[in-house]
Amino acid sequence: MIDEAAVADVVVRRVDAIDAATADAITWIADDRYARRLATSRAAAVIGRSSHLGSDPRGIVVDDPEAAICDVLERFRMPRYVPEPGVHPSAVVSEGVDLGVGVRIGACSVIKPGAEIGDNTIIHDGVSIGADACVGRDCELHPRCVVGDRCEIGDRVTLHAGAVIGTDGFGYIFREGRHRKIPQIGTVIIEDDVEIGANSCIDRAKFGATVVGRGSKIDNLVQVAHNVQIGPLCVIVAQAGLAGSSHLDAGVVMAGQTGVTQGVRIGKGVRMATSSIAWSDVPAGATVSGLPARDHRTELRERAQVRRLPKLMDRVAALAERVSRLEAAANHRGAD
Amino acid sequence: MIDEAAVADVVVRRVDAIDAATADAITWIADDRYARRLATSRAAAVIGRSSHLGSDPRGIVVDDPEAAICDVLERFRMPRYVPEPGVHPSAVVSEGVDLGVGVRIGACSVIKPGAEIGDNTIIHDGVSIGADACVGRDCELHPRCVVGDRCEIGDRVTLHAGAVIGTDGFGYIFREGRHRKIPQIGTVIIEDDVEIGANSCIDRAKFGATVVGRGSKIDNLVQVAHNVQIGPLCVIVAQAGLAGSSHLDAGVVMAGQTGVTQGVRIGKGVRMATSSIAWSDVPAGATVSGLPARDHRTELRERAQVRRLPKLMDRVAALAERVSRLEAAANHRGAD
Amino acid sequence: MIDEAAVADVVVRRVDAIDAATADAITWIADDRYARRLATSRAAAVIGRSSHLGSDPRGIVVDDPEAAICDVLERFRMPRYVPEPGVHPSAVVSEGVDLGVGVRIGACSVIKPGAEIGDNTIIHDGVSIGADACVGRDCELHPRCVVGDRCEIGDRVTLHAGAVIGTDGFGYIFREGRHRKIPQIGTVIIEDDVEIGANSCIDRAKFGATVVGRGSKIDNLVQVAHNVQIGPLCVIVAQAGLAGSSHLDAGVVMAGQTGVTQGVRIGKGVRMATSSIAWSDVPAGATVSGLPARDHRTELRERAQVRRLPKLMDRVAALAERVSRLEAAANHRGAD
Repeated sequence: MIDEAAVADVVVRRVDAIDAATADAITWIADDRYARRLATSRAAAVIGRSSHLGSDPRGIVVDDPEAAICDVLERFRMPRYVPEPGVHPSAVVSEGVDLGVGVRIGACSVIKPGAEIGDNTIIHDGVSIGADACVGRDCELHPRCVVGDRCEIGDRVTLHAGAVIGTDGFGYIFREGRHRKIPQIGTVIIEDDVEIGANSCIDRAKFGATVVGRGSKIDNLVQVAHNVQIGPLCVIVAQAGLAGSSHLDAGVVMAGQTGVTQGVRIGKGVRMATSSIAWSDVPAGATVSGLPARDHRTELRERAQVRRLPKLMDRVAALAERVSRLEAAANHRGAD
Repeated sequence: MIDEAAVADVVVRRVDAIDAATADAITWIADDRYARRLATSRAAAVIGRSSHLGSDPRGIVVDDPEAAICDVLERFRMPRYVPEPGVHPSAVVSEGVDLGVGVRIGACSVIKPGAEIGDNTIIHDGVSIGADACVGRDCELHPRCVVGDRCEIGDRVTLHAGAVIGTDGFGYIFREGRHRKIPQIGTVIIEDDVEIGANSCIDRAKFGATVVGRGSKIDNLVQVAHNVQIGPLCVIVAQAGLAGSSHLDAGVVMAGQTGVTQGVRIGKGVRMATSSIAWSDVPAGATVSGLPARDHRTELRERAQVRRLPKLMDRVAALAERVSRLEAAANHRGAD
Repeated sequence: MIDEAAVADVVVRRVDAIDAATADAITWIADDRYARRLATSRAAAVIGRSSHLGSDPRGIVVDDPEAAICDVLERFRMPRYVPEPGVHPSAVVSEGVDLGVGVRIGACSVIKPGAEIGDNTIIHDGVSIGADACVGRDCELHPRCVVGDRCEIGDRVTLHAGAVIGTDGFGYIFREGRHRKIPQIGTVIIEDDVEIGANSCIDRAKFGATVVGRGSKIDNLVQVAHNVQIGPLCVIVAQAGLAGSSHLDAGVVMAGQTGVTQGVRIGKGVRMATSSIAWSDVPAGATVSGLPARDHRTELRERAQVRRLPKLMDRVAALAERVSRLEAAANHRGAD
């Protein structure tokens, strides 16, 4: 895709944003906003569409600049450290664990009885895999993450450091002056190609399974409660929370610090703005914001109206004055 | 409680919700809403009150359906994995640690000098117990949780994976161009029958102790700052936060993503709705919502009024028009 | 600073707040509010300014009571547990790791190839240090924290339990029906004298580095996304979140559960009130609150106006009534 000849006599040592790029950096233009900064950029090479690059001699014309810069970033990536193939001597792998071909188990990781690890999966150091848990192939489990008993992880799944899969759901009934715990006998199913961020928590179902659908991506410090159903291809940004038995259809985007309350269903392709909280179902395709979340434009309009309240109050006061004057005049006339 | 004879010729293989139940599932009816779905449910057996079950042949009459379904879930629970009794060879238990009868210490766990672990307590793998910390009997500490030095954990306490008890409180004074740390010399006291969720944090007190009261239940990713006092039987849902020296009286319920600011006191039995933030004390028994949190009905009424703002603005504009017409007429008359 | 002779015949066994102090406690007065409680306090000794202490015989006069109480707390601090100097036999330190003089590495910690640990740094148990990572001198890394490959940690840095430094940033492009991960090839730089709370997450940059500036203090469960730039001396309270490429200038204070959205810049010395979310740049020196965050006084005024909406509605209704009466009178007169 990239015309290598065109950059043959330029040495590029780093990737950087268009404004920050130094004379040894390659950068990219994704939209008009960045195109306006092309002239002042010191970058050695600039990836973009021909409409944005014009005749700039540094330009490398591509159809999809964002995909092209991903390719470039891959080339600049430092080789990452992975444990040696096999089981590190300090790891504790129970008897009867089923390890696939090419599996790597890092130092001080613990794999409990009955667990299965698929081919070529990388388990970094200090990871805990529960009894009878099943991890697919080509996964990467980063340091200190925890997979609970009987949880099922698909293929090509990434769990980042400290992520916890399969803790008990949070459910109690209050009887005889104390909280009785509702047994949480279900599991968690993480489908293929899911990524789960650092220190995020996915709770085990009360019964059945909490599900994170194929290709969904979850950021850090996200809470997914028991029996939540997350459809495929969702994106859930940091510190968002999904309460028990809530449901995301395919392709939902939850921005940072958003929430969905118990049992609520969010329709296909919904986009929730930062910090919005869905208290009731949201129809497919909607963009929502606010607390409670509702149509983003309605929310913005209402906020604008609230901001005009001082003027409205002044206007009502002025009107009252004018009415008083009219009344005084009418009384005066009446008294004539 | 359950009449076993009545279900003798029915094979039940799972528990499920009334709508999702298949012909081999048992379900339950807790209220009128679910009772309406009884006729269309395919469940093999249904637990409920006689008033809800009527003469349905699948009915199993009980006084307390929610407690009964807990009993049923217990029966369906898979045996869970616990470490072998004693200390796993890879665990590191310092000299002088006092281990009770029947204690189990999992792989790669670390117990520091002077710690005490009560009878029958289960320490899973990768747990860290601080010096001179004291953990009671019949506790369960899940993988990768951390208990700091000198913290005290009562009996029958559960700490879920990644929970951190006894980190320094967050306090500084700004002097001579830098933040000086206020020493956090206190501890944490977790009373009996408490449960603390995955990756939640309970900070050590500046002096004295941060306290989580008897029977309180804390969900995942909750922050409890230094010197917080949580009374007995509180319920704190995921991602809630309690700032320094705040105080919950008995039986407070904090929903998900709620907050209590510094030094604020929440009265007995208060219920805080999702995402509400208490900026000032809340009296016993109140139900609050909003930012800042206040009486839930007041909050709802106010939101309704804001939604009527566009109409109010139209109304004021129409009134202004009418006043102008009256003024014009009065001027005209005055000019006569 | 403290006049030791004056307290020579008083035995002080603890530090406590002025109201809670018992007859064997020392307390302090920081402002007028506490000074009013001096007479009723049972404390054995009270640190304060002369203006607050008057002639109270228990008074210990100092210029800076908050700094003095820090000194006192230091004296009451229990000696804390640190691992023995050197490497614990259960720790796994790769060949070629560079350990400074006096370094302590606790049980079950893992230090990967190429890492450097500066003089006198304390690595507690169960810590994971990535390949080619660099940790400065006089640092303390608490149990179970994780430092990713190639991350750079300055001198005198504290990472609390479960903190995760250097997870991949959260970035994808959606192509051909799936999310393609944008490679996150950058690192994290934590400058000198930074403290990072339990289970907080600092993501690796897409390229370049995510930076936490000199002397900044971060509480528990905070999210710092890729390419965030945090200036020196900032204070970020628990559960706050900074989205990708956001920027804090020096000395910003973010209260608990606040947020800054993508690419937003917060000016020098800004104070963000609890739960406020900055959707756009905030100028230096501002105090902001609300969602979206704006000038705190404007926000408070607007909230007060919303609370006066019911009265405004009544007022408009009364005005409409008066106008109707004027119209009726005018019509009547016109009909004359």
